[in-house]
Amino acid sequence: MTNLPETPLLDTVKTPADLRQLKPTQLRQLADELRQEVISAVSVTGGHLGAGLGVVELTTAIHYVFDTPNDRLIWDVGHQCYPHKILTGRRDRIRTLRTGGGLSGFTKRSESEYDPFGAAHSSTSISAALGFATANQMSGAPGKAIAVIGDGAMSAGMAYEAMNNAERAGNRLVVILNDNDMSIAPPVGGLSGYLARIVSSREFLGVREALKRLARKLPRSLHQAARKTDEYARGMAMGGTLFEELGFYYVGPIDGHNLDQLVPVLENIRDAAEGPCLVHVVTQKGKGYAPAEAAADKYHGVAKFDVVTGKQDKAAAGPPAYQNVFGETLAKLAETDPTICAITAAMPSGTGVDKFAQAHPDRSFDVGIAEQHAVTFAAGLAAQGMRPFCAIYSTFLQRAYDQVVHDVAIQNLPVRFAIDRAGLVGADGSTHAGSFDITYLATLPNMVVMAAADEAELVHMTYTAACHDSGPIAFRYPRGNGVGVALPEVPERLEIGKGRIVREGKKVAILSLGTRLAEAQKAADVLDAKGLSTTVADLRFAKPLDEEMIRKLLATHEVCVTVEEGAIGGLGAHVLTMASDEGLIDAGLKLRTLRLPDVFQDQDKPEKQYAEAGLDADGIVETVLKALRHNSAGVSVVGDGARA
Amino acid sequence: MTNLPETPLLDTVKTPADLRQLKPTQLRQLADELRQEVISAVSVTGGHLGAGLGVVELTTAIHYVFDTPNDRLIWDVGHQCYPHKILTGRRDRIRTLRTGGGLSGFTKRSESEYDPFGAAHSSTSISAALGFATANQMSGAPGKAIAVIGDGAMSAGMAYEAMNNAERAGNRLVVILNDNDMSIAPPVGGLSGYLARIVSSREFLGVREALKRLARKLPRSLHQAARKTDEYARGMAMGGTLFEELGFYYVGPIDGHNLDQLVPVLENIRDAAEGPCLVHVVTQKGKGYAPAEAAADKYHGVAKFDVVTGKQDKAAAGPPAYQNVFGETLAKLAETDPTICAITAAMPSGTGVDKFAQAHPDRSFDVGIAEQHAVTFAAGLAAQGMRPFCAIYSTFLQRAYDQVVHDVAIQNLPVRFAIDRAGLVGADGSTHAGSFDITYLATLPNMVVMAAADEAELVHMTYTAACHDSGPIAFRYPRGNGVGVALPEVPERLEIGKGRIVREGKKVAILSLGTRLAEAQKAADVLDAKGLSTTVADLRFAKPLDEEMIRKLLATHEVCVTVEEGAIGGLGAHVLTMASDEGLIDAGLKLRTLRLPDVFQDQDKPEKQYAEAGLDADGIVETVLKALRHNSAGVSVVGDGARA
Repeated sequence: MTNLPETPLLDTVKTPADLRQLKPTQLRQLADELRQEVISAVSVTGGHLGAGLGVVELTTAIHYVFDTPNDRLIWDVGHQCYPHKILTGRRDRIRTLRTGGGLSGFTKRSESEYDPFGAAHSSTSISAALGFATANQMSGAPGKAIAVIGDGAMSAGMAYEAMNNAERAGNRLVVILNDNDMSIAPPVGGLSGYLARIVSSREFLGVREALKRLARKLPRSLHQAARKTDEYARGMAMGGTLFEELGFYYVGPIDGHNLDQLVPVLENIRDAAEGPCLVHVVTQKGKGYAPAEAAADKYHGVAKFDVVTGKQDKAAAGPPAYQNVFGETLAKLAETDPTICAITAAMPSGTGVDKFAQAHPDRSFDVGIAEQHAVTFAAGLAAQGMRPFCAIYSTFLQRAYDQVVHDVAIQNLPVRFAIDRAGLVGADGSTHAGSFDITYLATLPNMVVMAAADEAELVHMTYTAACHDSGPIAFRYPRGNGVGVALPEVPERLEIGKGRIVREGKKVAILSLGTRLAEAQKAADVLDAKGLSTTVADLRFAKPLDEEMIRKLLATHEVCVTVEEGAIGGLGAHVLTMASDEGLIDAGLKLRTLRLPDVFQDQDKPEKQYAEAGLDADGIVETVLKALRHNSAGVSVVGDGARA
Repeated sequence: MTNLPETPLLDTVKTPADLRQLKPTQLRQLADELRQEVISAVSVTGGHLGAGLGVVELTTAIHYVFDTPNDRLIWDVGHQCYPHKILTGRRDRIRTLRTGGGLSGFTKRSESEYDPFGAAHSSTSISAALGFATANQMSGAPGKAIAVIGDGAMSAGMAYEAMNNAERAGNRLVVILNDNDMSIAPPVGGLSGYLARIVSSREFLGVREALKRLARKLPRSLHQAARKTDEYARGMAMGGTLFEELGFYYVGPIDGHNLDQLVPVLENIRDAAEGPCLVHVVTQKGKGYAPAEAAADKYHGVAKFDVVTGKQDKAAAGPPAYQNVFGETLAKLAETDPTICAITAAMPSGTGVDKFAQAHPDRSFDVGIAEQHAVTFAAGLAAQGMRPFCAIYSTFLQRAYDQVVHDVAIQNLPVRFAIDRAGLVGADGSTHAGSFDITYLATLPNMVVMAAADEAELVHMTYTAACHDSGPIAFRYPRGNGVGVALPEVPERLEIGKGRIVREGKKVAILSLGTRLAEAQKAADVLDAKGLSTTVADLRFAKPLDEEMIRKLLATHEVCVTVEEGAIGGLGAHVLTMASDEGLIDAGLKLRTLRLPDVFQDQDKPEKQYAEAGLDADGIVETVLKALRHNSAGVSVVGDGARA
């Protein structure tokens, strides 16, 4: 345990109401203490650090100026909300962040009235804020809605859709653009260049200039005389025309670490704005903590670390992460195939596309937080003869579902989907779990859906996808490290729709898809020891099913269980549907489907989450034994021979 | 059959290569003939008319100037592509548009090499064009990519995501903004206002002015002297700064019906552009056909009509359309409930939200083509105490899937989804079929999924959704008219997760979800007549299932069949999963699931599509008989008693 920092002023602030009792001159000290507390807390929990450090002053100023929680404050993505949590009554639990039963690493409605809207996926905040503002408009309730959104998040289409609709909210909507020229990786694209040009074209506005620039829309804040000057200045200098064209009043850029600027500008907007405002605030990710400021990723996500040195706990050396196995395999394949290219939506290192980009920069595309564009762009590449790999986390691919259906599946274009973070993800919780992709992909005609059982299988599947030119193909694999099997020197092209028998038995068959295979093996050991000879199959394909193998397994085993890291409607449902279509259930079939439960599971250690889901060896064994005990009349028989 | 128009010049043009042999002075006549041919063809087929008429000159000019099909032309949405089809070798089949076995009403890869990318959902064209352009860049192949996109389609997030990534394509990318101030309904939002201000702030550019404005980026097209003037003009006049900030060179607005402007401007862009260009073309929807020009919707979608009078075939008076039943029911409920509000994404009349808006304009929101924003905006409204109804077609809701999962389901917010066009849709074909919503929604925790069996049920479900404050709820219903049942005077609040028995029998049970109920009834008549006493249940809920009823039906009937207008993974899969979880299949169960087939079905009459899918009375009867003949050893027995 690190020593706790001295925080005499922060100790007096339990809620934003306490904060609002302070004098403006005390805010600097409060922010400094808040920063130390964030550093201290994350040093023991790990988590998102850089983003929170960048908004310490902004968090302080917003809660100081606005009437939270009546004014609704919505943090985009929410990984920058640790200072916000400390100031809003959750300081006592801040060292439980991201642990089972502890605070979420994101904003969460069930946690606090100060979290009016949960986040974790990017770029939702303006839409949600518009909803809050509009509801208040309709009901006549007071209260504004404030969205704080990063420049990276601004590249997503839904932020633009929301901005395009902002005008109707009037002055109840305040958007604060937190421009740190950085999302997780450096941002890309036209918007990013545009913001950089604004910032570089002039110094930060001083508070007088900032207020002057508010004059046109904020008539009460300044006397009439200033208006002409202001308008003149707007015409000459490079301004926020893009936002203004969409109906916002733009003010900025202002220094997001300078409370003497932030507070009066926000006060003016609060009191005098006549329409929706966009405040362009420039911050520095990792601000105020030297090791973070010095790091390339600004300590975006960190392990536990030593506060003095900044040194993070290193994970013990182990098998390579799945993402890197993918990225390195693809890079190698691309050496001999000039049509292979890779696309990421602002997640180059998370997806392993960075490994590909190092080797093949001209064939690597980071499109920013823009999954919809990523998929249709890939479809265009495929239609023109390339072999694109679209590497997107399972949970984020949801954002491009229509493009997968419409631009890829209907047209039967050979886009390859490398789906990382499939299954449960541990500390990031339900918003980042990859629970639904098997279901939402396998329901689509033309789609091939694979899941890798280990890192060697991932190598084979990457190669198989590269070879598959007849239509779309997806392969999923989990967050984290492989299981330690040797990587094949020469990847194998898998036959589409064919699984493999991993272990032969006679009485019980476990039909596994994906990395639960290891638990299936453990379960088979236990069952074998109980005299229940167990077959383990790695189906490899959720679609098309290996119907021949499944038919045979169903016919020759007393109990069959499917196992998948996905929600209802996926592998198990497809196997059951096949068994029903073919009449295999007519004569009686002990077939069970293990899958994720019908709840959004909170963050915890993955092994705990899987145990809770019944998707570990114990859960598999229990399901098998229960099925064996279940007699043909549909009554569970307790304590029969199968248990012996 | 109408008389065919006289088209001597058009008769000589089989392909764009023929077109490119013409002199510029002949293009006017060609366009006039093309327009007459479009009017004549659509008068016998029905379909999208106004959009095609608006781009007759643009279609002509693009194929004249660019080297199609080597230059890749991508029509956004694609409903404006009839003139394009006529000019690209499909004139002989143009009077088969939207019919079974005929031409698709949209662009389609399998139809022609001149359709490099299929469309039908809005706003995909720039992303796809970027894919084509980038592929050519990588492979060194010649060829540009041209996206033609409407101003309404520009409001969707993915268009913005693509524009934000356009710079990398260089001069291989040309975006033509077809600004007719109209998508299907008049467009909304900040972007629309912005475009209107550009157009109203100045006259159309003459060709000299347009070329002058190209000077900066097109140095070869004009001598040096013009550049200063041009830059001066750009600084002063209101220009396309929004697009320029995103990295485009903007030129316009130009008159999209004036070939003397279009051709030279496009030629200059083709030959001399140094980066991605956006050409702002102003057109008039329905141009050149007086009845269309005079109509409010500019003959967006028409039935067969008389060319001389413009009078459309009227459908025989019949039951009300589902969309209107929904809209009127909701409007009535809102009279006594001030929290009810309705949201549409640019489909006010298609969803029936127009009926609601007439009565409650302040609580009706058309957000433009922006489904993602629509859903999260609704989530914000719900979080602030409103009762929002998000009315979106099944196929378009795919575009907001992540928002449904993340902002609604995870947070368990009571957003109501009114899902129109669920199931097969006839002439619009696979791109507009609502095939996947049961699967992709029912897999989500917290979600309630209903389907209306008829228009009276839709009234009940609308009311039930209004009452359901504990979490999200969706109800789906088909395109078209109800079945003619009386509408209830007082809507009934349905019990969540409870179905109803419509007809009692003993041997066979049909478990129906949605409007296939009528076919289930017909099938029951046939089966009864064969001595197979048949129960018909309307399950109403795909989630939560009426487990008690299903358990009882499975236990007491020899054969059970589920019927749904959706793909694999939906109702049938959930019933099978329940039966497996509970061990009901252990002792043998003749349970079959009828669903949409695992193919994307082409356009045809809906009844033919359902017959093809086996989802009509014949298909149900056949499935039941086959199941009955199937003996317990898993062998089909032909010609047994069940047939008698």
